Amino acid sequence: MGLSVDLIDDISEGIKGPKNLITDVDGVEVGQITIDQDDFHSGVTAILPHPGNVFKRKVPAASYVINGFGKSVGLIQIDELGTIETPIVLTNTFGVGTAINALTKYMLKQNPEIGDTTSTVNPIVAECNDGNISNIRAMKITESDVSSALNAAKDTLEEGAVGGGRGMVCYGLKGGIGSSSRIVKVDDDHTYTLGALVMTNYGFLDNFIVNGIPIGKSLAEMLVSDKQKEEKGSIITVLATDAPLNSRQLKRLAKRATVGINRTGGYIGNGSGEIVFAFSTSNLVSHFTEQNFDTVSRFNDNHIDLFFRAVAASIDEAILSSMVHAKTVIDRKGQLRYGLVDAAKQLVQQQPRYTAMIAQLFQQLGVKL
Amino acid sequence: MGLSVDLIDDISEGIKGPKNLITDVDGVEVGQITIDQDDFHSGVTAILPHPGNVFKRKVPAASYVINGFGKSVGLIQIDELGTIETPIVLTNTFGVGTAINALTKYMLKQNPEIGDTTSTVNPIVAECNDGNISNIRAMKITESDVSSALNAAKDTLEEGAVGGGRGMVCYGLKGGIGSSSRIVKVDDDHTYTLGALVMTNYGFLDNFIVNGIPIGKSLAEMLVSDKQKEEKGSIITVLATDAPLNSRQLKRLAKRATVGINRTGGYIGNGSGEIVFAFSTSNLVSHFTEQNFDTVSRFNDNHIDLFFRAVAASIDEAILSSMVHAKTVIDRKGQLRYGLVDAAKQLVQQQPRYTAMIAQLFQQLGVKL
Amino acid sequence: MGLSVDLIDDISEGIKGPKNLITDVDGVEVGQITIDQDDFHSGVTAILPHPGNVFKRKVPAASYVINGFGKSVGLIQIDELGTIETPIVLTNTFGVGTAINALTKYMLKQNPEIGDTTSTVNPIVAECNDGNISNIRAMKITESDVSSALNAAKDTLEEGAVGGGRGMVCYGLKGGIGSSSRIVKVDDDHTYTLGALVMTNYGFLDNFIVNGIPIGKSLAEMLVSDKQKEEKGSIITVLATDAPLNSRQLKRLAKRATVGINRTGGYIGNGSGEIVFAFSTSNLVSHFTEQNFDTVSRFNDNHIDLFFRAVAASIDEAILSSMVHAKTVIDRKGQLRYGLVDAAKQLVQQQPRYTAMIAQLFQQLGVKL
Amino acid sequence: MGLSVDLIDDISEGIKGPKNLITDVDGVEVGQITIDQDDFHSGVTAILPHPGNVFKRKVPAASYVINGFGKSVGLIQIDELGTIETPIVLTNTFGVGTAINALTKYMLKQNPEIGDTTSTVNPIVAECNDGNISNIRAMKITESDVSSALNAAKDTLEEGAVGGGRGMVCYGLKGGIGSSSRIVKVDDDHTYTLGALVMTNYGFLDNFIVNGIPIGKSLAEMLVSDKQKEEKGSIITVLATDAPLNSRQLKRLAKRATVGINRTGGYIGNGSGEIVFAFSTSNLVSHFTEQNFDTVSRFNDNHIDLFFRAVAASIDEAILSSMVHAKTVIDRKGQLRYGLVDAAKQLVQQQPRYTAMIAQLFQQLGVKL
Repeated sequence: MGLSVDLIDDISEGIKGPKNLITDVDGVEVGQITIDQDDFHSGVTAILPHPGNVFKRKVPAASYVINGFGKSVGLIQIDELGTIETPIVLTNTFGVGTAINALTKYMLKQNPEIGDTTSTVNPIVAECNDGNISNIRAMKITESDVSSALNAAKDTLEEGAVGGGRGMVCYGLKGGIGSSSRIVKVDDDHTYTLGALVMTNYGFLDNFIVNGIPIGKSLAEMLVSDKQKEEKGSIITVLATDAPLNSRQLKRLAKRATVGINRTGGYIGNGSGEIVFAFSTSNLVSHFTEQNFDTVSRFNDNHIDLFFRAVAASIDEAILSSMVHAKTVIDRKGQLRYGLVDAAKQLVQQQPRYTAMIAQLFQQLGVKL
Repeated sequence: MGLSVDLIDDISEGIKGPKNLITDVDGVEVGQITIDQDDFHSGVTAILPHPGNVFKRKVPAASYVINGFGKSVGLIQIDELGTIETPIVLTNTFGVGTAINALTKYMLKQNPEIGDTTSTVNPIVAECNDGNISNIRAMKITESDVSSALNAAKDTLEEGAVGGGRGMVCYGLKGGIGSSSRIVKVDDDHTYTLGALVMTNYGFLDNFIVNGIPIGKSLAEMLVSDKQKEEKGSIITVLATDAPLNSRQLKRLAKRATVGINRTGGYIGNGSGEIVFAFSTSNLVSHFTEQNFDTVSRFNDNHIDLFFRAVAASIDEAILSSMVHAKTVIDRKGQLRYGLVDAAKQLVQQQPRYTAMIAQLFQQLGVKL
Repeated sequence: MGLSVDLIDDISEGIKGPKNLITDVDGVEVGQITIDQDDFHSGVTAILPHPGNVFKRKVPAASYVINGFGKSVGLIQIDELGTIETPIVLTNTFGVGTAINALTKYMLKQNPEIGDTTSTVNPIVAECNDGNISNIRAMKITESDVSSALNAAKDTLEEGAVGGGRGMVCYGLKGGIGSSSRIVKVDDDHTYTLGALVMTNYGFLDNFIVNGIPIGKSLAEMLVSDKQKEEKGSIITVLATDAPLNSRQLKRLAKRATVGINRTGGYIGNGSGEIVFAFSTSNLVSHFTEQNFDTVSRFNDNHIDLFFRAVAASIDEAILSSMVHAKTVIDRKGQLRYGLVDAAKQLVQQQPRYTAMIAQLFQQLGVKL
Repeated sequence: MGLSVDLIDDISEGIKGPKNLITDVDGVEVGQITIDQDDFHSGVTAILPHPGNVFKRKVPAASYVINGFGKSVGLIQIDELGTIETPIVLTNTFGVGTAINALTKYMLKQNPEIGDTTSTVNPIVAECNDGNISNIRAMKITESDVSSALNAAKDTLEEGAVGGGRGMVCYGLKGGIGSSSRIVKVDDDHTYTLGALVMTNYGFLDNFIVNGIPIGKSLAEMLVSDKQKEEKGSIITVLATDAPLNSRQLKRLAKRATVGINRTGGYIGNGSGEIVFAFSTSNLVSHFTEQNFDTVSRFNDNHIDLFFRAVAASIDEAILSSMVHAKTVIDRKGQLRYGLVDAAKQLVQQQPRYTAMIAQLFQQLGVKL
């Protein structure tokens, strides 16, 4: 649901969708499952582009690699054919293999033709390394977990330390899943929705800013022992829209994800796998075509800035929302990993001089005490 | 072992290495396992860049996507960091997830630091769709199969319908694993080896040519019932060299794979996933560095054509070698899928007017009757 | 007019257009000017995508860099926006600056809004180094030459050592401008034309093959003194079609240019700038839009192989046509630079044992004696 | 000289070089010429990578296209070969052709072998559209202007509305040339300099922020009539370092330019040509090699974040510096185009409630009244 505030500045630029979630884009559904077994704290988040058979009715799509220290799969074929033909599954780095297997079986079940009378299928799986919180080496994600997430898909979602975001760490604080949406009015006859969902696991606390407020520096002084030595993070972004954008235009949108990420203080670190997927629920592409040509609506790039701004704003907000909704947890080594709200509260207690800054921060974030 | 002939023209351009295999590159090893269970005819081929710990001593590397109708994984990070840090595993399309899991576990076992005190690891898995021969939907590749292939690695390899190539079909005939190598003498002080290994599963028989001989057309008339309606193929190419080429230069080599492929009649079909990996066993990159800088040998691009020619020649030959070594098999629907040699022999029997052409073909291919 | 023969094999695969030129694509025009002043032998070839105002009605387009040892301009914006908004000008390497100036002025004259009330314009200029034949350092291409070529545009063109191709050398023989076209029948209701134009200036004579005949080797023995020591070549390819392909699909076509080039013996040399432009005359994009959305025809990629084959065949033929039509000339150092036909004739005279091969060659090329 | 302040936050992150200019990188020189003729207000800025013959001793380099609505030239060959072999010239969009000609002649004069006994040369020219201020259609940049700029190169430079930046507009205010540098200490034995130079001509005033202060919104209310309707901007960034980074690593640096740009409020608009060049003055590449191999220092990517941060900080500062140093001018239509300092002062006069914000702004920017 993003942040609950409606401010005049960057974070809330534009008009939010009714749920302020990626599922404001008609037909998009999200399913999640969260796993806590001993020192394994992970999960799966699945985004379904539409409720039908995605293999038979593919969505125009693009992907973009901001920084390629990552193991996401499926991008090669998106780049070539400009379509996505499965749900998108987000999980931890060592869950990718199992997610591919589960997603493949899910598609095979729906489509007996795959691998028999027609081509194979291109599973889309993205990942971050949740090894700070969870014993990632245990590789405990099961195929059943992935299909449970796929089958739990509905038109709303929980944010914070849930699903694939369960064990993620963002700017040294607890990260996870965040989402937001924007309404894009192109002209009197054309109004669309753009939604973003992020899995946040990147950044150094020192760099963290909220709408210009350099809160990270102050928190970092307090939480000095939590400072990461080595960046092992990543951020996965999924963009959805019902606007009839083609794969070239969707790639342009995907490239702007970096604007939203940078607004919170990111600088695209060496070890950060920053991967973006963007798809449109319009102008679907049939796998089994009766005709070689169809007729589609085409958007002139002249006003594409409207979408670029919506991308930046919704991702900025989705990142912050992932942090606002993530509770403080204990990591696999028994250390507290603070949620943003708890950390900010504690800062005020320890250092009363920050009272005004934190009040401003909470107002910006729509946090009520 | 490539082809046994030493001709003056394209196929054999350059000087072959002693084994005429990718394992002529010092330290490179290949392990394979072939699986035949009921209608499942598949396998795994693993290429080890060097006998040591590849995560700790990464190889400079590049990948290149000739056509992206494919599901190979690991390319994003190769592009970003210019290194490969695991063996390369080749298998069928629906074995990719399992291969990732097995390869990850193989690396975790060797490196207790991965996912704990250091970053994760980027498994490299490439695939073709062997669904013409094998019941790919059965998804019967096991993690144990993959580790068996990894553990079977040695400095030579069998070619033809073995390993990951067991169920592959090339130009409508039986394809599989092929390999070849070339010696590259840069100057009096610098002589290197370049090796290629291919898994061939692409092309239409009509287009197949051998060193200019349009043998495919004649065979296609005879084998008219085997004509594919839809291209569902791919070709995976792995290039190895001990020359000190950096990732930019290796990418240039990888791009030239298309020359070798085209020489046999390929035209980069829509449904063909044509993916290339290239690595150097020189100038290894340490994961745990004691020093931030090291000193490496750098090759001036002025004479890089020597390597480009070796790439084209060795891939041309490796493709043909995969076909020469592949025996006729029965596919999952009970149909004969001819090996090149058997098909050519049959052509002569049925159509004696092709006797001279086939004799020339067999001479070119070094096939003895 | 390409080659006059209609053979059953590679070179002539597919059905040729009525003129067998890029101008078979309705609306496409080509203008050329050839310059011979002292030791300066160069020229300009201009391709007009349609007879109207290309800035106001842009063509969907893509470019592709096979090998980037080249100085062509305009590709960045094609990649971003997927359109071409000026004619395409081909000239020698050191004529690029002047061609940009002339092309810009040509567009400014047509469009008083450019640089005043609307954006600037993106000139497309491609080049090869004709320094073997011409004194390229003299930089004698004038703006007037370029506008003369633009203004000379018509629906047919001369091939060989003319226009931008005047001073080019291909496979050590005389190269230049070549063109060819193919008819692509997608289904009963949809038949399109694909045309190719090349400016050929690449390759080593040793590697030259014609439809599998290794003629280059034999010629190289005779013309031993002409052997290039350093590759300084390039090949520019322009593809045009009236099929409603979008920029992603046009890029896929552009990538297949390498198949046609390789079929004549190319191997993408280090020093060869191999650049491809592809555009569609369908689904034009308005610069000044009255509406933000329009409705366009979209082609399903399932049968795009039909176009890929037409690309390979038309480029293969266009390259050979550039050589067949190029007469023997004297280069800037006073040496003979043989045309293919003259060289082949001389080979027969000197070495009668090649009589059969050359007869076969001439038959393949449609050359009559 | 960048900004004169030394703050603790984003803008001044890191240690500035002695001049706080790109020319802090040893050997890098910049020459500029500014042109004011009637309604033509433009110029040329030339960056020389080192004082020697750049063709003979090429610099390792990379380029990156953040958004490709631009006409910069030379990127193709940089991408292929990883080197820059000429100075980099910045001017207005319609000066590119002339700049290529002048730069080519400058190189030909230095190198009689070019285009005769060796290959041609790849001129690097980048541009922005200064049509808001200057009559760009007049095309008044001359070859002599470009060579004057090249010959004026020295180890310092003026910032603001000078050289290629004379007519540029940034965030609706006067833009131009800005520069800054950072010292990067990798370890006790290795300390390097990274310098940035920008030509700023992009952005909407509404979005302009300075280190988190949303100054643009307030200024936009005052300067409502200056609001751009259509983005016609661009930003060119040149990064130089003496660290031994190879072309892959330099491309990674170039990609991070977007972080610095976004920090000032950019969002990579549709019409903004955002192009980055990065080169190293270490490990030069000889054109005429005596040996095929040399020995070079190689930096392990593990600590490349140090450079990424320096990139973001120096570009953020260079952009602001271009604006702080740019005086208010009258544009070609007779309208005032405010410099940032003048605009801010006027805002305080008109709206005293902004006194504190502007005081903070000026403090951040090191502006003294």
